[in-house]
Amino acid sequence: MRNIRIVGMGKYLPEKIVTSEEIDRLLDLKSGWSEKKSGVKYRHYANGETASEMGAKAALAALTEANLSLEDIDCLVSTSGTMEQPIPCSASLIHEKLQPNKPIPAFDINSTCLSFVTGLDVISSLVHAGTYKRVLLVSTEIASIGINPKQKESFVLFGDAAAACIIEQGKEGQTSGILSSRMETYSKGAHLTEIRGGGTKYHPNHHDVEEDFLFDMNGKEVFRMSSRVIVPFVDQLLEGAGIAKSELDALVPHQASGMAMRLMRSKLDISDEKFINVIEHYGNTIAASIPLALCDAIKMGKIKRGNKVMLLGTSAGLSLGGLLLEY
Amino acid sequence: MRNIRIVGMGKYLPEKIVTSEEIDRLLDLKSGWSEKKSGVKYRHYANGETASEMGAKAALAALTEANLSLEDIDCLVSTSGTMEQPIPCSASLIHEKLQPNKPIPAFDINSTCLSFVTGLDVISSLVHAGTYKRVLLVSTEIASIGINPKQKESFVLFGDAAAACIIEQGKEGQTSGILSSRMETYSKGAHLTEIRGGGTKYHPNHHDVEEDFLFDMNGKEVFRMSSRVIVPFVDQLLEGAGIAKSELDALVPHQASGMAMRLMRSKLDISDEKFINVIEHYGNTIAASIPLALCDAIKMGKIKRGNKVMLLGTSAGLSLGGLLLEY
Repeated sequence: MRNIRIVGMGKYLPEKIVTSEEIDRLLDLKSGWSEKKSGVKYRHYANGETASEMGAKAALAALTEANLSLEDIDCLVSTSGTMEQPIPCSASLIHEKLQPNKPIPAFDINSTCLSFVTGLDVISSLVHAGTYKRVLLVSTEIASIGINPKQKESFVLFGDAAAACIIEQGKEGQTSGILSSRMETYSKGAHLTEIRGGGTKYHPNHHDVEEDFLFDMNGKEVFRMSSRVIVPFVDQLLEGAGIAKSELDALVPHQASGMAMRLMRSKLDISDEKFINVIEHYGNTIAASIPLALCDAIKMGKIKRGNKVMLLGTSAGLSLGGLLLEY
Repeated sequence: MRNIRIVGMGKYLPEKIVTSEEIDRLLDLKSGWSEKKSGVKYRHYANGETASEMGAKAALAALTEANLSLEDIDCLVSTSGTMEQPIPCSASLIHEKLQPNKPIPAFDINSTCLSFVTGLDVISSLVHAGTYKRVLLVSTEIASIGINPKQKESFVLFGDAAAACIIEQGKEGQTSGILSSRMETYSKGAHLTEIRGGGTKYHPNHHDVEEDFLFDMNGKEVFRMSSRVIVPFVDQLLEGAGIAKSELDALVPHQASGMAMRLMRSKLDISDEKFINVIEHYGNTIAASIPLALCDAIKMGKIKRGNKVMLLGTSAGLSLGGLLLEY
């Protein structure tokens, strides 16, 4: 048990809203197709903002929520699945927007859609060990720039958002902390979900296949691979914490798609009430998806202090990741 | 003190060698200019290989060196400053090339040139805490695709390489471990070293300024900013470990450029013998630079078991990072 506490969460959503009906019209789809397929009513798209600007706004919201100022933070970690620019790392760019008056360290942790879960897992160990006292994790994603209108199944899923989370060392008498965590990578599925171009393999100056710079997913195969392993994965996560599934107060899944979440809930046999589903307002916001849903669930009172909460998702990789915490 | 041990290191260099004389001719420079300016005699350029293929080869070399097999590893972390493709993360792609028969977790830690130092710092905490028993860190970089021939000062510096490092929990009676670590980010310098295009800010399908997809550095200003803070930074790193500078057996700096390293050595007043400098054979290989130099220094017998070693560098961000270890 790592004795850490989430003391504040914040979110930021770009102003521009795109409804599923608008996407139906844009992609010339039958009215209602996008919402039915994705479970998303509307999503936000960035409109001239950068990911680091969005991340900084979510960070400030989390600081306000925690009643803290930037001076109280001693490390800034970007836990995002997309990058604003290849160099420097995203955390430096968020750091630049926040302008802390101390040179607090800034670095990135990336496991695509699971970046927040991996980041919380890794950083909670450092906070527990006393390396840092209070860390700001920021997931900020602009998905809308990289989705492919020719691949309507994935185009309708995504939205842009930022979410931030502040964790600190637990105080005496507090029982909150990380109970267990687990990650598994099945790299046979490495190319089932990808953006092939933009890095050193297909460099923008030497490659001009537009689709290679856009998101490409074989959703069926991702679902097939992950659904084969998710039940034992969750069992091991629970076993690691020594608790039964019935003791869970909430499960916060990666908001991948309405259908994938419905099937996951049914496979894991979790009641609708405990299963946090906010995809209709945001779409799949990559690594911001889990902290955004966690933030909302806390604000709506669905997750309270002392509750046992599971964060769970799949990501490109193909990876499964999960974390059990007492809030 | 985190009781961990480096049990193996490996490197991989692409076959193609480019001498500084060839670069003099290519960029129409006076013969000798490139070597004099950079301190680099020759560097390796990838020639059709991908970064993950290079990283996997370095990883296998490290496993051989450690007399271990892939089965002995329970986590794979990419600590690289460039990415092969935007999705999935680099560690997944290295995982795919290595084909472990267990689904060991794979994720990235990125702080540009300091990624290995940050990764070793963070992951050593997890290994010390028992989260993982033995972790493979891989830094793999293809710099050559992103350098700008119009910016000759930085063009001559870079090379491609991969380096890997295996760390495990220290055994009883072993004194090796991490003595102290430190990172500072001065994001006023965030745009002094950058590749602006290729991410969500300047997406390849909506942006066609070729230079924005290439490396851009204001070397003078980076040097000015970092040299103002490096001496107290190193003092605090030493203080954290409770040792005097005279007790250091070796300093492994980021192999940024011949001149920057010369000035750093003189500013820190470290003897030539203790200062590991291998830049003439490789150039600046981004995050692979420090583990590559560490790997060579160990193989050459310049670093022995029980030695106190400082890893130290600056990176885009602008960040300073350092770590003191007993090998």
